[in-house]
Amino acid sequence: MTMAERNRRIVLAARPEGEPKASDFRLVEADVPMPAEGQLLLRTLWLSLDPYMRGRMSAAKSYAEPVAIGEVMVGGTVCEVVESRNTKFRTGEIVLAYTGWQDYALSDGAGLRKLDPAEAPVSTALGVLGMPGMTAYTGLLNIGQPKPDETVVVAAAAGPVGSLVAQIAKIKGCRVVGIAGGAEKCRYLVEELGLDAGLDHRAGGLGDRLAKACPKGIDVYFENVGGAVWDAVFPLLNMFARVPVCGVVAHYNDQALPPGPDRMSLLMRNVLFKRLTLRGFIVSDFAAQAADFRREVGGWLKEGRIKYREDVVHGLEKAPEAFIGLLIGRNFGKRLVKLR
Amino acid sequence: MTMAERNRRIVLAARPEGEPKASDFRLVEADVPMPAEGQLLLRTLWLSLDPYMRGRMSAAKSYAEPVAIGEVMVGGTVCEVVESRNTKFRTGEIVLAYTGWQDYALSDGAGLRKLDPAEAPVSTALGVLGMPGMTAYTGLLNIGQPKPDETVVVAAAAGPVGSLVAQIAKIKGCRVVGIAGGAEKCRYLVEELGLDAGLDHRAGGLGDRLAKACPKGIDVYFENVGGAVWDAVFPLLNMFARVPVCGVVAHYNDQALPPGPDRMSLLMRNVLFKRLTLRGFIVSDFAAQAADFRREVGGWLKEGRIKYREDVVHGLEKAPEAFIGLLIGRNFGKRLVKLR
Repeated sequence: MTMAERNRRIVLAARPEGEPKASDFRLVEADVPMPAEGQLLLRTLWLSLDPYMRGRMSAAKSYAEPVAIGEVMVGGTVCEVVESRNTKFRTGEIVLAYTGWQDYALSDGAGLRKLDPAEAPVSTALGVLGMPGMTAYTGLLNIGQPKPDETVVVAAAAGPVGSLVAQIAKIKGCRVVGIAGGAEKCRYLVEELGLDAGLDHRAGGLGDRLAKACPKGIDVYFENVGGAVWDAVFPLLNMFARVPVCGVVAHYNDQALPPGPDRMSLLMRNVLFKRLTLRGFIVSDFAAQAADFRREVGGWLKEGRIKYREDVVHGLEKAPEAFIGLLIGRNFGKRLVKLR
Repeated sequence: MTMAERNRRIVLAARPEGEPKASDFRLVEADVPMPAEGQLLLRTLWLSLDPYMRGRMSAAKSYAEPVAIGEVMVGGTVCEVVESRNTKFRTGEIVLAYTGWQDYALSDGAGLRKLDPAEAPVSTALGVLGMPGMTAYTGLLNIGQPKPDETVVVAAAAGPVGSLVAQIAKIKGCRVVGIAGGAEKCRYLVEELGLDAGLDHRAGGLGDRLAKACPKGIDVYFENVGGAVWDAVFPLLNMFARVPVCGVVAHYNDQALPPGPDRMSLLMRNVLFKRLTLRGFIVSDFAAQAADFRREVGGWLKEGRIKYREDVVHGLEKAPEAFIGLLIGRNFGKRLVKLR
């Protein structure tokens, strides 16, 4: 680090109405902060972009406090320790942190996890071996509870959560149908990940194609999307189907409810008559399973039984555009920002 | 039994459109059947009337096969063995059976359970110690999972399922709010059953009154009703709330969806953001817990910790009218038909 270097930070400039736009973000510069006794200076190597960040941009209560206007956007990061005044960390160590959309940040070491680059590429700590991977693993196994020969349908199946859900369901012996946007992603689902079918939700007639791909109905639906994908899945759910609700990205930008008829009672009738389980979750609900997750998914990764894909954008200044694209499915794999 | 006696049977005459009416049923007479070797002749003492029977009257697939036109309406019964050609049963024994809306039926003994009149009134085998009781016990404990000091709201709380749900929730140390139709039932909930509040869904402003009765929100909602009651409960659900869906009696007669806006996405967003669990069930899903149920609820009953109420109609010929009334909340307690 040269003394002349500046800390670039992307702050929330305005709360979006509907889809976020570039002007909702602002790049500002500040001095690189100096660590006090007990602190570390962290330099961001990788920034994770994830759909949940849309919720943090709104004033409405979501999982966590909203980001304040003028504050740095939050986010998971992989950082290098560039200066340490904390005896537990040494310069040059790589850590998983939550320092947000900026080049540098201070830390007192709390909540950091050291990463071993010899074990796996450090960027995987933000993807397949990180929050998205654990979301997939815990949501599918705790709520979805897939059994051999059952049919599992996964929304956003080419994304970091969906692609792992789909592959774990294959490992568990299920028929697995992935839904994604575009022919290229669907080809990837079948040819690279080995799913039984990959359906493009942008092509017409999703309901009919899904029914054909699921001749025995749907036992587990991993919900990442909502909207038209859910509408196609819902009539095909089997008795005792389980629906882990992980995301409804189609609705994050909604500003009003769609016109009727009102299907609330239709849903409740189906929950009853088909004895469905719908359950929402976020990864922290299963925090106690972190060690199991890393051991089991780490093992599958080493054995070559699961694959992952990263979608890397270069440069912090590209983060807003990359994030806006993520919300409309422009990513293909785990979207990461690689900093200098 | 005199040889001249006839077997009166109530058969399904027509499939109802919307609310069932008297002409959807027909009383027919047949000979009293004669048991063959290995069979019993059962005489009905008590017939249970339950909301699920509405589903059996429709051609649409529900839990079980619909009753065919011209067939005897199905239903749980308490019967006396009046003739036995089966070594396992003696004349005069009382059994729990499923012989439907008729005076007499044959059985080979399969599925019968002998009842001991010294243990509890035999009619309770159709109510608090029977299917409705076990529905309450298993649904509340397995899906609702009430914890001390949580707030539990129970729909149809003066009915056989709801009143036991409410009382078990009190035993578990919860704040319990019951919803029922009419001031008399609401008074019963508070004064007889000891609930913290009883709210009349027929009076106006249920949402506001419910919010006042649940100052800390709702952790468990036992759904028996749907419709306006669910609409009042839904916005008050807390983070991690659980909703056992046991019935949606407000919708059993629905013939079309209500007008919009469409709240499907609103529900899914809330499932996600509040990490709700919605799960439908019927009592047979937890059949393995029958012994636990009878031991535990039987114990509470003997200790006087739970109360029950029966709403008895006299004469098989009254069953259709009594059933039609049940679907619109005219019962106060477990509705039973006492036969001769």
